[in-house]
Amino acid sequence: MRLGCDPGRSQGAPSDATHVFERTPMFRNTMPRYEILSGDALAALDGGWRRLITEVGVEFMSDEALRLFREAGQKVEDNTAFLDPEFVLEQVAKAPREFDMQARNPANNVHIGGDAMVFGAVYGPPFVREGAVRRDGTLADFHNFARLAQSFAVLDSAGGVVCEPNDAPLDSRHLDMTYALQTLTDKIYMGNVVSGVNARDTIAMGEIVFGGREAIEQTPVSISLINCNSPLRWDDRMLEALFEYCRAAQPVILTPFILMGAMSPVTIPAALVQQITEALSGIALAQLIRPGCPVVFGSFLSNIDMQSGSPTFGTPESGIGLLCTGQIARHFGLPFRTGGGLTSSQVPDAQAGYEALMTLLPTFLAGTNVVMHSAGWLEGGLVAGFEKFVIDAQLLEMLQHEFTPLEIDEAALAFDAHVEVGHGGHFLGAMHTMERFRTCFYRPFLSSSENYERWMRGGGKDTAVRAGEIWRRRLEEYAEPPMDEAVKAQLQEYVARRRAELGD
Amino acid sequence: MRLGCDPGRSQGAPSDATHVFERTPMFRNTMPRYEILSGDALAALDGGWRRLITEVGVEFMSDEALRLFREAGQKVEDNTAFLDPEFVLEQVAKAPREFDMQARNPANNVHIGGDAMVFGAVYGPPFVREGAVRRDGTLADFHNFARLAQSFAVLDSAGGVVCEPNDAPLDSRHLDMTYALQTLTDKIYMGNVVSGVNARDTIAMGEIVFGGREAIEQTPVSISLINCNSPLRWDDRMLEALFEYCRAAQPVILTPFILMGAMSPVTIPAALVQQITEALSGIALAQLIRPGCPVVFGSFLSNIDMQSGSPTFGTPESGIGLLCTGQIARHFGLPFRTGGGLTSSQVPDAQAGYEALMTLLPTFLAGTNVVMHSAGWLEGGLVAGFEKFVIDAQLLEMLQHEFTPLEIDEAALAFDAHVEVGHGGHFLGAMHTMERFRTCFYRPFLSSSENYERWMRGGGKDTAVRAGEIWRRRLEEYAEPPMDEAVKAQLQEYVARRRAELGD
Repeated sequence: MRLGCDPGRSQGAPSDATHVFERTPMFRNTMPRYEILSGDALAALDGGWRRLITEVGVEFMSDEALRLFREAGQKVEDNTAFLDPEFVLEQVAKAPREFDMQARNPANNVHIGGDAMVFGAVYGPPFVREGAVRRDGTLADFHNFARLAQSFAVLDSAGGVVCEPNDAPLDSRHLDMTYALQTLTDKIYMGNVVSGVNARDTIAMGEIVFGGREAIEQTPVSISLINCNSPLRWDDRMLEALFEYCRAAQPVILTPFILMGAMSPVTIPAALVQQITEALSGIALAQLIRPGCPVVFGSFLSNIDMQSGSPTFGTPESGIGLLCTGQIARHFGLPFRTGGGLTSSQVPDAQAGYEALMTLLPTFLAGTNVVMHSAGWLEGGLVAGFEKFVIDAQLLEMLQHEFTPLEIDEAALAFDAHVEVGHGGHFLGAMHTMERFRTCFYRPFLSSSENYERWMRGGGKDTAVRAGEIWRRRLEEYAEPPMDEAVKAQLQEYVARRRAELGD
Repeated sequence: MRLGCDPGRSQGAPSDATHVFERTPMFRNTMPRYEILSGDALAALDGGWRRLITEVGVEFMSDEALRLFREAGQKVEDNTAFLDPEFVLEQVAKAPREFDMQARNPANNVHIGGDAMVFGAVYGPPFVREGAVRRDGTLADFHNFARLAQSFAVLDSAGGVVCEPNDAPLDSRHLDMTYALQTLTDKIYMGNVVSGVNARDTIAMGEIVFGGREAIEQTPVSISLINCNSPLRWDDRMLEALFEYCRAAQPVILTPFILMGAMSPVTIPAALVQQITEALSGIALAQLIRPGCPVVFGSFLSNIDMQSGSPTFGTPESGIGLLCTGQIARHFGLPFRTGGGLTSSQVPDAQAGYEALMTLLPTFLAGTNVVMHSAGWLEGGLVAGFEKFVIDAQLLEMLQHEFTPLEIDEAALAFDAHVEVGHGGHFLGAMHTMERFRTCFYRPFLSSSENYERWMRGGGKDTAVRAGEIWRRRLEEYAEPPMDEAVKAQLQEYVARRRAELGD
């Protein structure tokens, strides 16, 4: 059992100019993995993707990608590459099994792969919710979410598009977001993927903060989400971004975006086969672009409601898919991404609580390496919720404690405490208790165990109300992590120049 | 993957006069168990309980119990039995690894042990909550909870004291509760344990319904919770009830009641050692009373908040304890009880949702055989919540679907669907989808995935409000399961006579 109630990280591990960074106290899941696929099942899935990638193939809406596959001896017809599974596996084998990423604060450096788990906030919502108000997200909201991600030690990253800053100029808002992620947080951040141009800007801004191209190629500073337009198609703009990031050795998360019933068949095995086919085809391309480029086997797998067509989250099917995905990614020797605090609920209510955990707990059971959407996801991902952000941070803390192995030694067995207390007594004042009472149990910051009378005297506030108080207080207490003024000026100059060039 | 959205059971499997009953479609968890204790850890715990039971011993506040231990050659001083671990294991070995129970409706018979999981409602709350109202529980509430337990197919039992019927006469309310469980439900039920007298009444009423003592001894009809007054003491009234139930071969759940920090040391390993010691000592006594009597290794394990002293539920510590308990019970070859939908929350909010699942999901991972408190638990068990009852039933349905193994065959891989749909298309109208769309995914009855506009048009109801509508509708639609009028009259006669005898 980890002692100490705060899973926060120690500060100030010195920066290191070499490739191998100091191990920071990021969360490592050394508990057993929960695996549910038999050898036969894995073999069936293996047969499935080999057939699919060979006979149906994958569309790449990029001449450059098709050229690379053709030059590598693969069959290409129109936009479809029909890939030899052995060729794909050769490419996959070039990807590192694990890799490091550097953050502006070296104490926030992360390792990706193995037993390491990295947590980022929700990604992509056009709307935000605070309390009873649901509205368009703004750049101010984006800033506040970035500050909250900085504030909660349990998060390794604000992620990327924590919410869409709808009031920022469209063609240059990627500059605003990247600048905010780089200055309001000192954690790793995600790169913009709307286009190759945006990716180049993200990379250039990383070079400014981290000391040039060589430095970021040596140890990457951004990680980017490349979604497949499932089924079996990679679109042009995402691929443009992929090319840029791979050339700069910045990690990419190749993610089939699958809502079963719409983007894949309705059976989980079929969705898993498709997911393997899509992810591996993208990873093969990444390795053709730059052999050894760090990649992550991505998964975003849920299902639609077959009556209404609505996407649903936190479902039994997505839980099963998540567990299988971990096993599959390990089978291919790749770090993987899946999970998060997903829910369909419109508000941070009981459903939001149980659906988020219905995804997050399997995320820990699977030992997911990169967890996007770990905080703030609401309403099927359309909304970034301030209260939900706090609820998810609470869940992450609880789970990080739960997935820390027990230490069993003589002192933990506490025989002497039994001798001291005897039959029918209580342990509140026992020596064994006195020595440990401050740190023995995880103490939640959001959950209430107040008795009814006390809770009523405090206003009878439910979890969502308390969460609202917590995020407001966190924002009040927030202090921007210091940044070299010259670097900051250089960033601002870059943003201003590029915004002008982009005509915004 | 189980097909079909309703995990309900088929009706009308014929009654069987022999000991072995028809397998009913009760839930069986054939997924892998999640085990986190190493061999070394198990060995350390094994050494721990052996030392504790030998050197500190266990108090039994019953001369009859002490006499049995003494006659069996065990060392007894005052009320404390110092037990030889090998003797204890010999007694434990007499208990059946698995056993059957008969319900009034044979379709609701259950099996206890192995991969079978039995779910009962919350047990013991003095208060109830409906919506914003929290008040003393009444017999009318008890009836309504019993009806709801009958109504939700996912529950195998209403349990026992679903809420305390505070308006029923104290000395005879066990008769009212037993009568209600026997008539308003046709599922198995729990026996009253307030005293030996109450236990005898429960048994007598079981004899009336199921055709006499021999019939219920052959296949038991009630299961009873015998709590240890932890640490290391069994109290007199509970033991009186234990003697009665064991003599009638009615199963007992021997449960250490441990809130770490108060009733046990603050370390999980110490709590586990104590739990083994207490449970096995009670099981040994049960086997001395009647060798072969069906027993369940019980666990109720959470912790207090060390700052306020409040009990806390759905904590990381209780999750870890739960997983360990399953492994320990299997080690001793005993069916086990733990888990439930526990929460400290005062209302059915986000915390109630995530804490309930934080306990229920590990309950499934551990493969718990008997799950008390699976529906309705609120406010640390002080309150039976109507809305929470519905939320928990939703969670149980989701989990029963999630813990059903995938079927992977050629049809599930859906290769032809990919050929039909092609790249970038959608599967909504594919033949493979059309053949499966009604049953392919679990469809929740409580969770909402409505889009925002539609949800707002419907009144913008959160989960608790929707749950309130559901339980009210369920009660309206409830029909009492038919019972032979002569049997019912005999029960009523018994209740009236005994109430008079008890002076109420």
